[in-house]
Amino acid sequence: MDLSLDPNLGGGSLLIAWQLKDKNVLIVGGGEVASQRVESILVTDARITVLSPEKGLSLRTKRFLELYPDRIVHYDRPFTGSNELENMDMVLTAIDDNNLSLEIVGMCRKAKIPVNAADIPDLCDFYFGAQIRDGPLQIMISTNGQGPRLSALIKQKVQGSLTGFEGEALRKVGELRQLLKVYEPGVGGAAGRKRMKWMTQLCNQWEMEEFASMDADMMKRIMEDGWMQGRCPTFEEVGGKSSRRTLAGGPQTISSWSKNLLIPSLSFVAGLVVAGLISIPRRR
Amino acid sequence: MDLSLDPNLGGGSLLIAWQLKDKNVLIVGGGEVASQRVESILVTDARITVLSPEKGLSLRTKRFLELYPDRIVHYDRPFTGSNELENMDMVLTAIDDNNLSLEIVGMCRKAKIPVNAADIPDLCDFYFGAQIRDGPLQIMISTNGQGPRLSALIKQKVQGSLTGFEGEALRKVGELRQLLKVYEPGVGGAAGRKRMKWMTQLCNQWEMEEFASMDADMMKRIMEDGWMQGRCPTFEEVGGKSSRRTLAGGPQTISSWSKNLLIPSLSFVAGLVVAGLISIPRRR
Repeated sequence: MDLSLDPNLGGGSLLIAWQLKDKNVLIVGGGEVASQRVESILVTDARITVLSPEKGLSLRTKRFLELYPDRIVHYDRPFTGSNELENMDMVLTAIDDNNLSLEIVGMCRKAKIPVNAADIPDLCDFYFGAQIRDGPLQIMISTNGQGPRLSALIKQKVQGSLTGFEGEALRKVGELRQLLKVYEPGVGGAAGRKRMKWMTQLCNQWEMEEFASMDADMMKRIMEDGWMQGRCPTFEEVGGKSSRRTLAGGPQTISSWSKNLLIPSLSFVAGLVVAGLISIPRRR
Repeated sequence: MDLSLDPNLGGGSLLIAWQLKDKNVLIVGGGEVASQRVESILVTDARITVLSPEKGLSLRTKRFLELYPDRIVHYDRPFTGSNELENMDMVLTAIDDNNLSLEIVGMCRKAKIPVNAADIPDLCDFYFGAQIRDGPLQIMISTNGQGPRLSALIKQKVQGSLTGFEGEALRKVGELRQLLKVYEPGVGGAAGRKRMKWMTQLCNQWEMEEFASMDADMMKRIMEDGWMQGRCPTFEEVGGKSSRRTLAGGPQTISSWSKNLLIPSLSFVAGLVVAGLISIPRRR
């Protein structure tokens, strides 16, 4: 256990996944930044209220209002006062009026409603960051305001490290875990530990692509030929076609294949050729 | 602008960077999970209160209490009632008593204090996720509860995609941006756009390692030979030693070096050797 005193331990944020299912989120403003806020909140299952005069709506905000009329309510007027905050669970301001922003932040603080004001970072309860999403997988990259451009570059790198199968794999593993609970019911305790140990073994053994390609039949075989026998079956044992991995491979799979095999192979051939060239003059 | 209707848009969380500087966080419980909560909150600059009978403290929690006496206050008693929530800005419970957890969540909801109860995910205002930190850079990986084990595997991959220079690069770029504001003052408007455009160009042109190795002298040359001349200088032009990149390389750099050069080189040599072996019998 390495808990040595870390002088850099402070100074950061608490990165969390806020739950907004069936909650009310107020977005004050309708411009470009407001459209980013709408997009962030659409990821959750919150009810969105956009408060902005029609003329202040960006093309992007307008498009969201058209596409998701059942999820976003738009009022064609500016912010009128603390009555707007009634029943709100979160407030995001994205307006040009710095004083009004300050005022809204003050009202939210008083009403204990989490608030983010795009133009007053110092007073925000929370910040946004660069986001990656693939189904149940969500990744946030925060640079604590230090470098918006580098943040985008880091996001590209992180995105490049994913195979593209993660979201589907998570979804399928979620299903398998549900099935496992049918075969081995019980909450916590010995049953829970036994299930967890087996799932960990399986996760260490199988590839992301393999999990992603599981179907109902394979899951049943994993349970029957694996769990019931007290072991972790291989992907092939339960009917998985390993060729699938290359055929269905995303761009990352192909590129890492080329790095791992293609370049060394070419180098090997180059070695053969060079050696051949060297030996030709000798033979003469 | 691709805003096509995405059926998978909902169902997620809002990933945010919560600000806790000088805020009060109450952690109810002192066991293994509580120690993880302490660790998460230590990243921020919050004041931490741990509420747990001495006998309920895990080794890890005890170690944190010893190491950070100025940041954590420990009360050797169980949770006594709503009076404990006074002045608290966030509450985290990590106790075995499910009913007490439920009660605390209810109190927090009433007092509008954000709360996470380790044993009642459905009632949490927010979840935690796998975290990566390197100075100002923080990354969170959330699988929305779908696969704790796969989440750890994805974290490994993401970590592997980083060079290890990101944190230092962000810190240095933050300094450079401050310096840029000395050379070109003014908030927003034309000056802001001009600064942003130049920083973006520089970020696209320089490597993470190069930013990380900037010193005061180099930053001054970047301003004088770059910004003042209306151009983006290369790393070498301002006195950067490109050899530094390999010498100062973190583990990732070395490993990618070995992948990119070592393995092909070995393959090449192997090719030479194999060709040599083939030619030996011929000469006999």
